[in-house]
Amino acid sequence: MTKYWSKLVNKLEPYVPGEQPRDQQYIKLNTNESPYPPSPAVAQALKDFAADSLRRYPDPQSGDLVAALAAYHGLKPQQVFVGNGSDEVLAHAFQAFFKQQDKILFPDISYSFYPVYCALYEIEYCRIALDAEFRIDFDGFRCANGGIILPNPNAPTGIALKIPEIREMLADNPESVVVIDEAYVDFGSDSASQLIPEFDNLLVVQTYSKSRNLAGLRLGFALGNENLIEALQRIKNSFNSYPVDSLTSAIGLAALADETYFQECRRRIIASRERLATALVELGFHVFPSSANFVFVRHPQSQAENIYLELKAAGILVRYFNSARIDDCLRISVGSETECEALLEALKNILNAWGQI
Amino acid sequence: MTKYWSKLVNKLEPYVPGEQPRDQQYIKLNTNESPYPPSPAVAQALKDFAADSLRRYPDPQSGDLVAALAAYHGLKPQQVFVGNGSDEVLAHAFQAFFKQQDKILFPDISYSFYPVYCALYEIEYCRIALDAEFRIDFDGFRCANGGIILPNPNAPTGIALKIPEIREMLADNPESVVVIDEAYVDFGSDSASQLIPEFDNLLVVQTYSKSRNLAGLRLGFALGNENLIEALQRIKNSFNSYPVDSLTSAIGLAALADETYFQECRRRIIASRERLATALVELGFHVFPSSANFVFVRHPQSQAENIYLELKAAGILVRYFNSARIDDCLRISVGSETECEALLEALKNILNAWGQI
Repeated sequence: MTKYWSKLVNKLEPYVPGEQPRDQQYIKLNTNESPYPPSPAVAQALKDFAADSLRRYPDPQSGDLVAALAAYHGLKPQQVFVGNGSDEVLAHAFQAFFKQQDKILFPDISYSFYPVYCALYEIEYCRIALDAEFRIDFDGFRCANGGIILPNPNAPTGIALKIPEIREMLADNPESVVVIDEAYVDFGSDSASQLIPEFDNLLVVQTYSKSRNLAGLRLGFALGNENLIEALQRIKNSFNSYPVDSLTSAIGLAALADETYFQECRRRIIASRERLATALVELGFHVFPSSANFVFVRHPQSQAENIYLELKAAGILVRYFNSARIDDCLRISVGSETECEALLEALKNILNAWGQI
Repeated sequence: MTKYWSKLVNKLEPYVPGEQPRDQQYIKLNTNESPYPPSPAVAQALKDFAADSLRRYPDPQSGDLVAALAAYHGLKPQQVFVGNGSDEVLAHAFQAFFKQQDKILFPDISYSFYPVYCALYEIEYCRIALDAEFRIDFDGFRCANGGIILPNPNAPTGIALKIPEIREMLADNPESVVVIDEAYVDFGSDSASQLIPEFDNLLVVQTYSKSRNLAGLRLGFALGNENLIEALQRIKNSFNSYPVDSLTSAIGLAALADETYFQECRRRIIASRERLATALVELGFHVFPSSANFVFVRHPQSQAENIYLELKAAGILVRYFNSARIDDCLRISVGSETECEALLEALKNILNAWGQI
């Protein structure tokens, strides 16, 4: 801290993403990246891109990309907002909707960036405890609030809500914006975007980082009522006129157009997840029911941190959260078929050495 | 406005970038883009880029790019911060440094995004009037303040301060952060980055959009004391872990490495600007002394808005600001040699038709 910092800066406890060590090659199952490359259409779009056009500013509205996303999701362009990754879109949403008289609500076990955004924008919040099986406690959300945000499926648990449950929460909170953060929705749950015509308080946020295999591109978007999208536009246009660069737009369009590849990747990851979950149960793990591209697991005899460290020593990264209620759990991204096998082999060796199988 | 918007959203008056009409092909001299394509090294970097690597998140610290920029500017990596365009970097700087007891100061004629950032972060400001020749009034900046921001060269005037003048302002304000916004510095003025070892209250912001011919890429950066950079990191890591995508890093590195091309483009633009300025004076314009890639001009007999409209009708876009003190001026980006000739020809016709030459 120094005299030069705004007071706020000192109070921030920044978000820490999953580690990306460079000391050796790891099997990376710690940041929910896709084990598969992006669509071949992406490589083609890169090849076809006219480098000379980069001397021009991008379209500040990313019109073509917005129109394509609107068509894909059965919405109007005025119901779509794009940003530099869904983290930026979420940040704008916090500033646009959640600075209210009442506290906002989110689950106690959830995306750990939410309290960080609250600190950044000085928003008060209340965490609603998940039940013992890490399911959403609907009664907990039935109180006065300045907004609600939920990942669906939830992270890092992987557990998904069903559409009727989301509908009920939206109907219960006509005065608040409810943000459904669907980073993992394409791996087996239903998008709340179908409820947009019904509810003007619903904002759905999605990303290209997971199911489109493009974490390195930084592209996220929000879907919702025109009025909510206008608020996001006002924030964005007061922050950065051109958050989505020309290359990102072109690649985003190309990836969206390759529906076959998208469906194939989803299908493979879901199938791998189910095989992985079964094998982990056989090794003695409790596996929470996942609708995401990761599994959240607990071993009754072994400390999660120790398993994490042993796996790292064996060249495999998984995510361990040193946080209340989940410090006995591990989040493991669904890797390629080979990566999943290597993980299971390593776990077998570790548990064997500890005499736990 | 609706019940869903944070109060703040309603008060915002977003920044409006130069128009990008799509109804026809214009000669675009309205957004200070480069008339030249990016370095051939950029096309090569695009060709060499492994599309498959996009499935991975970028390095959240953009380590390679930061190291290269540090080396280029003779600084340590801890003195460099990169972001999604210099507009994002500036936004973070406003939040990190300018939320203070006292008002911040900037010139009354300046980058029109500054008051927008102030609204976004609820920062109070005071505009210090430029003198009649649009030069900085140093005495005006000699008052208690919560920070100072100046474009150098200034925009839209193009007039540059000299290093001793910036040094004096830094020495006069040891309690405040002074941000020197050097979007246009490569077109004939000196960077204040040489003063960083001397002043821990100096932040210099630069961009790839102008002199690197990469407006479509969205890459900007800040240089300053480690302590200021740490504050920007804390804001960034509370907003978006990965603002610079993998492609942007790779292209940014490639462009930086091609020093010969960079110097050649600068030289050509400076030479074109001088020829253009001379020709505009011959047409009766008052041309303010520019160190930027644009000229700021006033015609004693003709209304700026009318010239702007006539030029647009002739297929040439320039920038007209409907703002106090400068609504009789036009900002004209330095185009290619051919574009400058077309502009001069069109102006000749317009002024001729009006009987003013």
